[in-house]
Amino acid sequence: MKLAVVGARGRLGRLISLEAKNRGFDVIDIFRESLEVGHKCHVVIDASLPEGLSKSVAIARDSRAALLVLSTGHKNLEVLPNDLPVCVAPNASFGVFLLSKLCKVLGRFGGEIELIETHHTAKKDKPSGTALMLKEALGRDVNITSLRGGTVPGEHEIRFYGEFEEVRLIHRAEKRELFAVGALKLALILAKKPPGLYSTEDLFSSLLA
Amino acid sequence: MKLAVVGARGRLGRLISLEAKNRGFDVIDIFRESLEVGHKCHVVIDASLPEGLSKSVAIARDSRAALLVLSTGHKNLEVLPNDLPVCVAPNASFGVFLLSKLCKVLGRFGGEIELIETHHTAKKDKPSGTALMLKEALGRDVNITSLRGGTVPGEHEIRFYGEFEEVRLIHRAEKRELFAVGALKLALILAKKPPGLYSTEDLFSSLLA
Amino acid sequence: MKLAVVGARGRLGRLISLEAKNRGFDVIDIFRESLEVGHKCHVVIDASLPEGLSKSVAIARDSRAALLVLSTGHKNLEVLPNDLPVCVAPNASFGVFLLSKLCKVLGRFGGEIELIETHHTAKKDKPSGTALMLKEALGRDVNITSLRGGTVPGEHEIRFYGEFEEVRLIHRAEKRELFAVGALKLALILAKKPPGLYSTEDLFSSLLA
Amino acid sequence: MKLAVVGARGRLGRLISLEAKNRGFDVIDIFRESLEVGHKCHVVIDASLPEGLSKSVAIARDSRAALLVLSTGHKNLEVLPNDLPVCVAPNASFGVFLLSKLCKVLGRFGGEIELIETHHTAKKDKPSGTALMLKEALGRDVNITSLRGGTVPGEHEIRFYGEFEEVRLIHRAEKRELFAVGALKLALILAKKPPGLYSTEDLFSSLLA
Repeated sequence: MKLAVVGARGRLGRLISLEAKNRGFDVIDIFRESLEVGHKCHVVIDASLPEGLSKSVAIARDSRAALLVLSTGHKNLEVLPNDLPVCVAPNASFGVFLLSKLCKVLGRFGGEIELIETHHTAKKDKPSGTALMLKEALGRDVNITSLRGGTVPGEHEIRFYGEFEEVRLIHRAEKRELFAVGALKLALILAKKPPGLYSTEDLFSSLLA
Repeated sequence: MKLAVVGARGRLGRLISLEAKNRGFDVIDIFRESLEVGHKCHVVIDASLPEGLSKSVAIARDSRAALLVLSTGHKNLEVLPNDLPVCVAPNASFGVFLLSKLCKVLGRFGGEIELIETHHTAKKDKPSGTALMLKEALGRDVNITSLRGGTVPGEHEIRFYGEFEEVRLIHRAEKRELFAVGALKLALILAKKPPGLYSTEDLFSSLLA
Repeated sequence: MKLAVVGARGRLGRLISLEAKNRGFDVIDIFRESLEVGHKCHVVIDASLPEGLSKSVAIARDSRAALLVLSTGHKNLEVLPNDLPVCVAPNASFGVFLLSKLCKVLGRFGGEIELIETHHTAKKDKPSGTALMLKEALGRDVNITSLRGGTVPGEHEIRFYGEFEEVRLIHRAEKRELFAVGALKLALILAKKPPGLYSTEDLFSSLLA
Repeated sequence: MKLAVVGARGRLGRLISLEAKNRGFDVIDIFRESLEVGHKCHVVIDASLPEGLSKSVAIARDSRAALLVLSTGHKNLEVLPNDLPVCVAPNASFGVFLLSKLCKVLGRFGGEIELIETHHTAKKDKPSGTALMLKEALGRDVNITSLRGGTVPGEHEIRFYGEFEEVRLIHRAEKRELFAVGALKLALILAKKPPGLYSTEDLFSSLLA
């Protein structure tokens, strides 16, 4: 499968490009310039800064390729084509997707719920975007505690406190490569879909037996 | 609400009776004898040995009461009335119910899953009945590791191993009273149901908003 | 061994008295009155409110007994006898003692350390006294996060964040009876000591092989 | 500081060399050949296969440099010089060192102890060498449970089961780079030591305030 990575010199783009090559994808790294004439691809992964999105769209249109947008913060989502398979994925981790599915179940029941997230000291934003997303999946106004320390790649813990019992759901990232791996999984699924706008959940859910 | 506890001298029966009184239920402890004439109740909780079941059924029939059967190992379930609300609940913990709901979601996705259960040293059976029930909820042939130590009331942990990430679901019992508390919750819900045979899941699910 | 429990109608006193009887101690419950004439004991456990301390001291002096003071908040510690074995134990848990020994080792090394404590919602004071004690054992100005939820009897977690690794030390109380059990362990050790003032650590340390 | 890495093309050697350069060390990667004439270094890190040790020793002797031997399985340790600072470090993780210090304290007390280690599925040996080392630090015949799953870089958990309480000590590796980072820390400390044979513990202990 031929893959174009837009923003391939950014931190995430580099990881995706590297993982993709390791896994036998035919990868075209795209930095500033566009795809050369005649170079067609099956999937475009946008890992660029917000201003890169229109380039990703142009390449996808030109190749009639699926388009996976990873970067968050894009404001001009109206440029997304509706005649191609498109997915906007703020968090490409399969485990986080799983956790959010579980949170939807958990949140439908009564009880005290609390969320604790831990990340390395360099992470400035509190709470993490993933924590906010899980809170939304819970569908409740839960308290979020943010801890920062060491080099922790990312841990999210949801605690349900019952009467004389408790349930904890924990997601632990081992390293950032997981987002690259997840993006490639999403890209593979997206490439086989008919045109339309898909959520991470739509795509991962199609892994269901 | 008037509650008859059959097997009220057994370990679980005693806890149920005590908790129920603490919570303002009108409790009739039933040991060997039957309900006295004229004594009607709304719910019968069977916490007896297998041979006690027919007495519980007789009392429930006589009072037209709901019947909650907690003890496992009953062989003569054909005696259960079908014109009363009835529930057979091998594990009355709300948290374990929640965990089993989550396991059903988790089990539908690919990946490596493993189950670890820890109980006090006096617990002889391995794996625990709850672990087997969770395995069934996962719908997969997962490996179960059983640890025994100290006075641990009960811990069940499901691990999902992904690529560069993992998800853990943990249920922790604080003390055996939780099963009494759960039984009372089930009894309250069951008492309001129309006649029929209900599972723990049916009843707890009706707590859904 | 003959044991006098002062404050035997309080929450902790009652648990101690009950556990002690279960374990074959000869227990004298003392509420308002004093020991009857001729009633001698080997150990006095003070689980009273601050104002009960002088009575405990009187009983211990009269019997030439060891004196274990559990209640915190006693202001008149100068009344403690120095010709008897005496121990003031704000936390009688063996596991917490262990954790505090470990914290002393951990605190001697560089690195980021953080403390998280979780207790049931009824616990008003934040952080817990045990958390403060562990912070002192660490010998550092660590951040303490206090979580409150459900019926959690008490969990203390110390996290050491390293470079690409972390260490966590966790103490989990299963139920309040553990403090009664710990008090009895301390009482047994204290009864065999020569006169003097002992810390929890002195006594538990004598369990060392 | 000038650093020679012997075995710099191996998995660990490569990581060490990379981390060292990132941290401003002056690194000489050594594969098959020896140090060029006139090239002196302060520390030699041996990350080679067993047959590489004599070369590392020769280079260290020639530069009068400290020698840190990381690889395990070296049989010819008698070739180690005794007129240079030398350390043989089977596990260069600071956190594992910390955990083993804690295990020494824990193991001196009575009680039930258990060890659980989890590693990625590619790890064939059971139990892990670190688990065996921790068992030795505990000084007791503890049960070790080995779990294998996913891509887990390495988790070691020691559980102490008490009466109505438990203590858990957990070390979690985030990624293999931690061993490179640890090796560099050890190298820095070793370089300042007088000649002699040092253990990992000797060196990390000198970080004590």
